[in-house]
Amino acid sequence: MSAQGVHAAWIAVDWGTSHLRAWAMSERDEVLSEARSDRGMGRLAPHEFEPALLDLIDPWLGAGTEILACGMVGSRQGWTEAPYVAVPCKPLDIAPVAAPTRDPRLRLRIVPGIMQETPADVMRGEETQIAGWLARAPGFDGVLCLPGTHTKWVEISAGEVVSFHSFMTGELYASLSEHTVLRHSLGDGWNDQAFAEAVSETLSRPETLAARLFSIRAEGLLRGADPGRATARLSGLLVGAELAGARPWWLGRDIAVIGSDRTVAVYAAALALQGLAPAIADGSEMTRAGLAAYHRRHASVTA
Amino acid sequence: MSAQGVHAAWIAVDWGTSHLRAWAMSERDEVLSEARSDRGMGRLAPHEFEPALLDLIDPWLGAGTEILACGMVGSRQGWTEAPYVAVPCKPLDIAPVAAPTRDPRLRLRIVPGIMQETPADVMRGEETQIAGWLARAPGFDGVLCLPGTHTKWVEISAGEVVSFHSFMTGELYASLSEHTVLRHSLGDGWNDQAFAEAVSETLSRPETLAARLFSIRAEGLLRGADPGRATARLSGLLVGAELAGARPWWLGRDIAVIGSDRTVAVYAAALALQGLAPAIADGSEMTRAGLAAYHRRHASVTA
Repeated sequence: MSAQGVHAAWIAVDWGTSHLRAWAMSERDEVLSEARSDRGMGRLAPHEFEPALLDLIDPWLGAGTEILACGMVGSRQGWTEAPYVAVPCKPLDIAPVAAPTRDPRLRLRIVPGIMQETPADVMRGEETQIAGWLARAPGFDGVLCLPGTHTKWVEISAGEVVSFHSFMTGELYASLSEHTVLRHSLGDGWNDQAFAEAVSETLSRPETLAARLFSIRAEGLLRGADPGRATARLSGLLVGAELAGARPWWLGRDIAVIGSDRTVAVYAAALALQGLAPAIADGSEMTRAGLAAYHRRHASVTA
Repeated sequence: MSAQGVHAAWIAVDWGTSHLRAWAMSERDEVLSEARSDRGMGRLAPHEFEPALLDLIDPWLGAGTEILACGMVGSRQGWTEAPYVAVPCKPLDIAPVAAPTRDPRLRLRIVPGIMQETPADVMRGEETQIAGWLARAPGFDGVLCLPGTHTKWVEISAGEVVSFHSFMTGELYASLSEHTVLRHSLGDGWNDQAFAEAVSETLSRPETLAARLFSIRAEGLLRGADPGRATARLSGLLVGAELAGARPWWLGRDIAVIGSDRTVAVYAAALALQGLAPAIADGSEMTRAGLAAYHRRHASVTA
């Protein structure tokens, strides 16, 4: 998708390790145009940051257009470090940090992430999705689950992030399915029953995870391949083990799952198997809603 | 190491996915010479198998020299498939399978692996190490732990493999340390206390594994890097979770750990923390002892 020649009141940017997305926003925070590329932070050297951003948003720029960005763009290896804010904190109160630019048309600010001392934990990008959720549901009291590479479980009370907990589930799935013997067993397709059984197995007996992972391979060797079943089983085993670890967060709580369609569906299905009916929100939409909330609240602060 | 011009009474071969090792053996099963290469099954096309073997052992070959091989060489994608023997079975009774060869000097036989229907599980290569152990300790009754890419816990009674259980711990360690965000945190060095704490954490609460894995990264970001501590912690978290899953195997049992120096030391340390004093044996030595036992027992069978 390429940028359109529209006039943006401000520009929202989501810049992660592997992706770069930008939206031209109206004064009423409507999306006027969208642009994206695969030039994530992880693939760029520092001198390539500004050109990569300009490539996407140049057609939208006027005099002094505000740009608000979140994600790994604010990490130590990013455009400029936006130091973490410590919990407990109100995501909507987090103040974006001004970033140096060469092109005088660029007025860029970056949203800091959130950190927790004990147990040590960090998030960067999710704080904006949480702010987006809280802007839409100010009275929400409960738990947010943000599945992804490093899934976050976040306890929300009185508009504050009280505590949070990251699980490496998404990255475990990726590395197991691409770099281990399981890659021979997985494939297209899905099997709801295999997923449900696998969730139940590791939720009740999380200590069996590494053994059940190998059993996916052994079953393929002994009983023939069923790539869709194997894929659903791998996903179910990992999500079940995560739900076992996150039980104190979801048990008896109001819960919302925020993320991309496919991932949210997997987590919502696993939670539904536990008798829960989580609310659901699109991650990209929450990112924009969060950036819009920051833009409204912090627009008058000197960039 | 290159092959020496010695006359071998027979030749022992350990041929896995990533390695190829051969030993020229005397009539009294002493090692006369050793040769190795990195031409594992995983890196070779079928037409390259025989040349790769001849490259190593040609100087040792006489008329009708018996060659006995174990490992992935007997898998479906290997030289010839040596079909699995089902549990319960006596490892020392497993009969090697003749393999087709082009060079008339080659008389090659391959040791089959062992399979288990429920729960589905397979081993290939470890059966020979188990046979080697049982040849040395015929009265052993207890549990063998064979740590590696896919660690095996094997219940032995009356010379039989009664049941076994594989854990993907080694491959989890490799894929996590090479292909995830943890690669930024790990490095040379070791910290015994960090290892012990990590073992204890996931042994008592295995459901927290995916969260504690991410905490290695978060601690590095918030408190500064300690690569040796992070490496010990990753190892401890994975081994602790495995010990939690394998508890029915090791609790109150005689136990021996068979494998390479470094891996055996890690598992022995984790078991010692539980008050156990496992016997220890070198994996490569057990492979040769097992092949020697097969050679003695099955030498008269027509190849």
